[in-house]
Amino acid sequence: MRETQSGGSARLEPDILRGNRRALARAITLIESTRPRDEREAEALLTRLLPKTGTSIRIGITGPPGVGKSTFIEALGTRLSAENHRIAVLAVDPSSRRSGGSILGDKTRMEKLARDRNAFIRPSPAGSELGGVARRSRECVLLAEAAGFDVVLVETVGVGQSESAVAEMTDLFVVLVAAGGGDELQGIKRGVMELADLVLVTKADGDLLPAARRAEADYSAAMHLMRPKSGAPPPSVLRTSALTGEHVDEVWLRLKDMHAWLKKTGNLRTLRGAQSRRWFRKEIEAAVTGSLLSDAMLSRKFGTWESQVAEGRALPHAAARDLVRELLAEGVKGTYD
Amino acid sequence: MRETQSGGSARLEPDILRGNRRALARAITLIESTRPRDEREAEALLTRLLPKTGTSIRIGITGPPGVGKSTFIEALGTRLSAENHRIAVLAVDPSSRRSGGSILGDKTRMEKLARDRNAFIRPSPAGSELGGVARRSRECVLLAEAAGFDVVLVETVGVGQSESAVAEMTDLFVVLVAAGGGDELQGIKRGVMELADLVLVTKADGDLLPAARRAEADYSAAMHLMRPKSGAPPPSVLRTSALTGEHVDEVWLRLKDMHAWLKKTGNLRTLRGAQSRRWFRKEIEAAVTGSLLSDAMLSRKFGTWESQVAEGRALPHAAARDLVRELLAEGVKGTYD
Repeated sequence: MRETQSGGSARLEPDILRGNRRALARAITLIESTRPRDEREAEALLTRLLPKTGTSIRIGITGPPGVGKSTFIEALGTRLSAENHRIAVLAVDPSSRRSGGSILGDKTRMEKLARDRNAFIRPSPAGSELGGVARRSRECVLLAEAAGFDVVLVETVGVGQSESAVAEMTDLFVVLVAAGGGDELQGIKRGVMELADLVLVTKADGDLLPAARRAEADYSAAMHLMRPKSGAPPPSVLRTSALTGEHVDEVWLRLKDMHAWLKKTGNLRTLRGAQSRRWFRKEIEAAVTGSLLSDAMLSRKFGTWESQVAEGRALPHAAARDLVRELLAEGVKGTYD
Repeated sequence: MRETQSGGSARLEPDILRGNRRALARAITLIESTRPRDEREAEALLTRLLPKTGTSIRIGITGPPGVGKSTFIEALGTRLSAENHRIAVLAVDPSSRRSGGSILGDKTRMEKLARDRNAFIRPSPAGSELGGVARRSRECVLLAEAAGFDVVLVETVGVGQSESAVAEMTDLFVVLVAAGGGDELQGIKRGVMELADLVLVTKADGDLLPAARRAEADYSAAMHLMRPKSGAPPPSVLRTSALTGEHVDEVWLRLKDMHAWLKKTGNLRTLRGAQSRRWFRKEIEAAVTGSLLSDAMLSRKFGTWESQVAEGRALPHAAARDLVRELLAEGVKGTYD
């Protein structure tokens, strides 16, 4: 699979643009590689593909383990494929130690969708640092778009700050919650509800239907307590049963409507522009921190200052100025060549 | 008032440590000054006072205009003063264009507290940039602690991201909401509810009492939908009437209990350490961005890259690397001397 030898990436471009899923998979592998030559190739490839990106409906999905994310994604994906949409499913999970096993795991969880030729499923890139994982996932979204996938789902299991990372790379954000009411509702992390454009109560069937209805009402009430996100469509609460397939159509129509509204109002362009600018600033910070920590002397100094600051024995402002002054004076030449 | 001439700050230190409010006011003026010599003096003063800081209960307060923040702060402050607490009221409002008039305005809003010798009221430092305003406010908290104020309230009117800025410099965060129910409840900005350790329904008296009771129940239900902040005490919802003075005692007891819990569990130390570390990183970012933008060539380049990134014509990662490489290679020497 890892055909990243010289020349490999040049041949990738036309294959990706033709929508070849194997080429897409290879390009993602290239993006995930940490070999300097692969990194340069990946960047060149992405830069060439950039004009062909930005074309999909980007949807973020989160929810606690067991809520039925895979089941829902499989139901939605199969439904979209039948309508001749091409759907890519990516994941952001900074805790994942990826191996052949877990790729298989992801595809097994969505058995039907994994065999669908209109679908592409890719697990989270490995890495323990959310920033790196998020950057690679963002770039995977771009690749999938260049390969002609017009709906991109980015799923997260909600480790660390991964929900906001996913919300920062998607147009609409869906939060799945369990039917059950009462204490079971407390599983949503703070800060996640307000990212939601759509709250989806899952497993709304059989014995759980009354509880799901109550949960739908509870969440609707809770959403009403919050001012809508600026520039976003009014948030919705719906319930769904992946088992009976009920409401999956309704969910898709709602998402499509919301996206059409974002496009029509010009808010989509504003949203994505703001996301990209924030991403850019984060990359600058990461690059600076990287330079700082890659210099042995400065890295030691950073650690010392940081402990002193944390213990209230140094002023953050003064410590930061001291560090940055040295970083710029020394130049830390060569760390970026 | 502006006695920032040579030698002034040296005399300030003993006066502040004695709890002199006039000296505290002068020190804050020094911190707010943008004259390079004043900045150096302010930093030296703060560094000397640092061992005497960290001693107060730091409480953040927010709520929409008209909810009754000043009335509540006056009621709480007067109550604390009677118990021989010393209370400092600071404000964070990046939109404030401070003038003599608005200082007067702040003190007029809290007429009784302004005359109380156990109280110190200071409006938001001027500045349109939240980062700068927040830094100065953080430093004001430290000064107030050095001056022996054992309860520090930091108020914000909720412009921009000022609520999270205030939550980042306080131990407990109180959100004031209006009694009224229904549509009126929608005034809370997204992201603010989950910062709350205590939601306070104001004006719970007279005709509004039934509505306040309903609001209390609604917010309790909504808070239950959210997982508690890690390391924080379980959030509470209470109602209060500054008019009748009812529940002000209860609010203070609750806050004191929460703070005692934070202290006992060691979570206060963890929380403040984490806040300081994040502050430190923000200062590093600000210093780097400052250097970048202070260099004419790099600043132009940043602007060009940023537009290209926002329009999806450049990769954030590549653009950031290019910029930081130049920043470090050029060294931008002298900008920090």
